[in-house]
Amino acid sequence: MEHLECLFCQKSYPVDPFMTFCTECREPLLFPVSSSKKTIFFEKSNSLMKFLDFLPLEHIDPNLCLSQGDTPVIPLNNLIKKFDLPPTFVKNETLNPTGSFKDRGTVVAVQKAVELGIDKIGTVSTGNMASSTAAFGARAGLQTFVLVKESTSSENIISTLVHNPQLIKVNGDYGNLYFRSLDLGRKHQIYFMNSVDPFRIEGYKITGFEIYLEFRPHPPQYIVVPVSAGGHLIGLMKAFMELQTQGFIQTLPKFIGVQAEGCSPIAQAFMSKKLKVERIEKAQTIAYAISNPDPPGGNTVLKLLNEFGGQMIMVNDREILSAQKLLAESEGIFCLPASATTLAGLLKMKNQIAFSSDDQIVLVITGTGLKSISALDTMASAVHRADLENLDTILSSLIE
Amino acid sequence: MEHLECLFCQKSYPVDPFMTFCTECREPLLFPVSSSKKTIFFEKSNSLMKFLDFLPLEHIDPNLCLSQGDTPVIPLNNLIKKFDLPPTFVKNETLNPTGSFKDRGTVVAVQKAVELGIDKIGTVSTGNMASSTAAFGARAGLQTFVLVKESTSSENIISTLVHNPQLIKVNGDYGNLYFRSLDLGRKHQIYFMNSVDPFRIEGYKITGFEIYLEFRPHPPQYIVVPVSAGGHLIGLMKAFMELQTQGFIQTLPKFIGVQAEGCSPIAQAFMSKKLKVERIEKAQTIAYAISNPDPPGGNTVLKLLNEFGGQMIMVNDREILSAQKLLAESEGIFCLPASATTLAGLLKMKNQIAFSSDDQIVLVITGTGLKSISALDTMASAVHRADLENLDTILSSLIE
Repeated sequence: MEHLECLFCQKSYPVDPFMTFCTECREPLLFPVSSSKKTIFFEKSNSLMKFLDFLPLEHIDPNLCLSQGDTPVIPLNNLIKKFDLPPTFVKNETLNPTGSFKDRGTVVAVQKAVELGIDKIGTVSTGNMASSTAAFGARAGLQTFVLVKESTSSENIISTLVHNPQLIKVNGDYGNLYFRSLDLGRKHQIYFMNSVDPFRIEGYKITGFEIYLEFRPHPPQYIVVPVSAGGHLIGLMKAFMELQTQGFIQTLPKFIGVQAEGCSPIAQAFMSKKLKVERIEKAQTIAYAISNPDPPGGNTVLKLLNEFGGQMIMVNDREILSAQKLLAESEGIFCLPASATTLAGLLKMKNQIAFSSDDQIVLVITGTGLKSISALDTMASAVHRADLENLDTILSSLIE
Repeated sequence: MEHLECLFCQKSYPVDPFMTFCTECREPLLFPVSSSKKTIFFEKSNSLMKFLDFLPLEHIDPNLCLSQGDTPVIPLNNLIKKFDLPPTFVKNETLNPTGSFKDRGTVVAVQKAVELGIDKIGTVSTGNMASSTAAFGARAGLQTFVLVKESTSSENIISTLVHNPQLIKVNGDYGNLYFRSLDLGRKHQIYFMNSVDPFRIEGYKITGFEIYLEFRPHPPQYIVVPVSAGGHLIGLMKAFMELQTQGFIQTLPKFIGVQAEGCSPIAQAFMSKKLKVERIEKAQTIAYAISNPDPPGGNTVLKLLNEFGGQMIMVNDREILSAQKLLAESEGIFCLPASATTLAGLLKMKNQIAFSSDDQIVLVITGTGLKSISALDTMASAVHRADLENLDTILSSLIE
């Protein structure tokens, strides 16, 4: 079996779900990009099995799966026309079993937990990872601990609790909670599969592999993805780095990470050409799913973007809500504000980047809008009212 | 092109989205099961195209699609063990783009609307059909009218409004509203693709075809499905009747339709061996998505179940909520109470029906639990609280 590595000091560590950060650099450990020959099993029925050779797993136990992944790529024809965009697609991760991309990381980490005989798992989450970990934990019969912020929305609390984990709302600094959970996990043998856990990141690679399968032989020129802790972007970049190392592709896509202005520590560091992210004191954005003021994978994201090409940008809440509306009204896709940052970012960049008319752009839509409905309550004022007797009149008045 | 037919008086009608009920019997018109040779295009990438030959469409316009259908079949291994069930599977329709099976009917009806140059569509819905029709209407650029009951939940209102339809809350009898909408639709040339619209029902067939592909050559012995207006069950039965007519299968699955005790007009009629459904006065059940006191497809359901074998059963709200909990806690699947009626029904029947140990049972899980989160608000009392300092103590106390 392979080893884990710190990208910063190159120190090598044995593979251990209870030791996932470099003890010296306090940076996340990753599986290195391997140069040993890998095979894509094209004939397999799902992407996790197609790319098993690229994962740190011996095999896939289907009983621990919930049909995660294999999500569709859809062209945004209406928005392309409306804004004169190059060919733009969404990778629709809302169609994962718990409604977000988190399921891809969770399934790999849970497979590993069961393979190693670990019977307790956990996570620290602002929302999507909570329900994902609880669902896969339930399916696998593992006792599951979910630690959430005080401010977590009731949608996220309830959609997690239904799977019967132990859910604890923790009052205190979220960044400190992250590392505290890893310490307590080691002590109690609870595998905390948090945002930049190396197995979780390996799971996120599968999204990149699926995008490759959809566009091969040439990957899309741009992949746009919301950035919170950094794990998702790291996984996507790693997928294409491995495809390049294996000779499946020649050039890498350009990665564009998007943050919300109200919580943009990585974007701020990138734009001021710093190599280290500084935590911000107060996060404030409608895009709660990417509201991480102290991202544990931030420095890794900066390092990878600088080495392999790519950039971080930020968008404000007005732009985010407008993009969420555009996706729902023009394309029929209802996503989280956090996911709509990708379209907001594209619309912002389109005057700054000289896209060629045949550049292909993929927006990764990370989670379903059904998880943040209460944030849209004010929309209810658009409801018309009628009774059977005056329905004809009301209806007639609304016809365009 | 084919014609529409009344199952009761056999009168034949030209195909017309504005004329979908028999003027004499007031029963829904259906496309008859055709005996002309049909081809399954196995090589196509999605099920709508694989079974195009079975649909009343000339072709599929991918620009009007949202990756509906092609949902997974998952074995319920934990529940099979727990309750000593025969091989039992869910067909997980929550993984449709708007979170319910309704998308399958909507996409076919919208394709037809565009094919015919209709630019206004509508629906009468208690929830799932509202957001589905609004989403596909938005994608197709059609003006969309959604008529809902006064009592429709805010989750359903908001997840519909995001797609910018004209949404009207109508005060008055829901059964009357159904037919009133069809009259007004004819008058204003708004195609109301309601619950038992013949094109919608053709779309529901695809679920049956996918189940066939999963289990072929022999279909599962039992298919269990929640029943509201009746359209879904009619579509599923029609799929297998057509597969039998075409020689793909020899025997039909047994269909088991489930209703909630608090709103069970079709189950009551079936159990008292009546051929006509009597509307009930007051519906009261947690399973709002199947709470239709005056089901327009009820008589058709009775007729088909009597002719082709099958039955209607009912379960109470306690059994429904318990089944919803079981699916979430044991299998990681979070569905609507309406969808959990299928498991509740199976658990109720397992002492009444002599299942053989190799009978295969498919429960059709129709919609995602994310659309009825507010109904579960009381769960929030299960949340624990801690701060960083006492987290270790709290965590330790919860470890099993």
